[in-house]
Amino acid sequence: MRYFITFSYDGSEFSGYQKQPKERTVQKCIEDVLKEINGGKTVSICASGRTDAGVHAINQKAHFDMDIKITCEKLLKGMNSLLPPDIYIKSVLEVDEKFHARFDVIGKEYVYLINTGEYNPIERNYVFQYCSKLDVVAMERGLKYLEGEHNFKSFTKVNEEIVDYVRKISQTSLVRDSKDINKLVITFVGTGFLRYMVRNMVGLLIEIGEGKRKPEDVIDILKYEDRTLSGKTAPSCGLYLRNVFY
Amino acid sequence: MRYFITFSYDGSEFSGYQKQPKERTVQKCIEDVLKEINGGKTVSICASGRTDAGVHAINQKAHFDMDIKITCEKLLKGMNSLLPPDIYIKSVLEVDEKFHARFDVIGKEYVYLINTGEYNPIERNYVFQYCSKLDVVAMERGLKYLEGEHNFKSFTKVNEEIVDYVRKISQTSLVRDSKDINKLVITFVGTGFLRYMVRNMVGLLIEIGEGKRKPEDVIDILKYEDRTLSGKTAPSCGLYLRNVFY
Repeated sequence: MRYFITFSYDGSEFSGYQKQPKERTVQKCIEDVLKEINGGKTVSICASGRTDAGVHAINQKAHFDMDIKITCEKLLKGMNSLLPPDIYIKSVLEVDEKFHARFDVIGKEYVYLINTGEYNPIERNYVFQYCSKLDVVAMERGLKYLEGEHNFKSFTKVNEEIVDYVRKISQTSLVRDSKDINKLVITFVGTGFLRYMVRNMVGLLIEIGEGKRKPEDVIDILKYEDRTLSGKTAPSCGLYLRNVFY
Repeated sequence: MRYFITFSYDGSEFSGYQKQPKERTVQKCIEDVLKEINGGKTVSICASGRTDAGVHAINQKAHFDMDIKITCEKLLKGMNSLLPPDIYIKSVLEVDEKFHARFDVIGKEYVYLINTGEYNPIERNYVFQYCSKLDVVAMERGLKYLEGEHNFKSFTKVNEEIVDYVRKISQTSLVRDSKDINKLVITFVGTGFLRYMVRNMVGLLIEIGEGKRKPEDVIDILKYEDRTLSGKTAPSCGLYLRNVFY
């Protein structure tokens, strides 16, 4: 039976999503719990994609196969009772064995939070504590140049295995939080995102907000397909995987 | 010279505000930093009051005396550069040596956050994850009976040293968060609060919200001055010291 899960996690205390020897990762925590439920037999989960250390997920998705017969409701309760408090399974569905949580993704939504006000220790792991003013109008103009289908090689770690750096960003927004005008909320919806791509785009937008770059610079940075042009990588703590679309 | 500081902290990783042998506390962290600034000579700080383990502060206040001459601006920067990331000094003022951060308090404001929706791992240390519906109208009615001057012995740990359990709650409110209707925000403003008093009042309000108690029960619980009547103590993670008034 193939199961499809939607889950959230606080990335603060994980070395990212993906399993790595000796590290506490989201994948390992979930697979450990599934192994226990599956009578000691290993279960491998396949997520929509990885998230890096410190990155949070509001609706991450994954599938896995298990031989034992268990209702979705029991599996949901069982997993949540065994998982640590920083991971939560929101739903479990039975799906067709042809469904694939990574290959069938048609889009993702990421959100990035920046505090431009006073340093807030309570939100230090959940909102990037930039703590200085930014030119939001310029940032928004820069953001719009990122929309559309582009080669995003300038915004990722170049990897020999990747043959195609073209991705389509269908929708973006930059707004001030309705409860806190010093908090900027940047949203990206796209067909797919390369490694560090959102954090690198946010890093560039911050440089635009600081006046170090012009919004129009985005056009050239995209064109030259060169990572050295695009600026710093924004910290992981401000980033949330909000949704995965199929 | 007497200095008066306003500071915020994330209570999650502290064994409370007050110094205790071998424990990581807010007071100890700040005093360690001040000792360093003060050339190795011990500085004792006096806060408006303690907060328990896990309780957060948005605007905690304290005073301390130092012999060395240092501007408020330098002291602010120096403290923040040496403090851990979960404490932040928001301001430093020079005050008259007659001013006392604890004795001169005329009121405090506390906020308590409850999530009545789906468990949220990202907010688990910052909002009480109650995760079930509550009768907000009944809670609000119960809350109003807590307003005014009362003997709050039923809402604290009885302590031989305390002679007077009378406190005045001047203002309360219970609202749904404007961004998340499942999040309840309960505010208390009063002349002073006994140990565990806010968390015990919230614990009782939750029992009212569950239908286990009636809003009117608050009247009798206050009258009988008996801690065993008032119900569970709500978890510390949902509580914030928002303001101290002088």
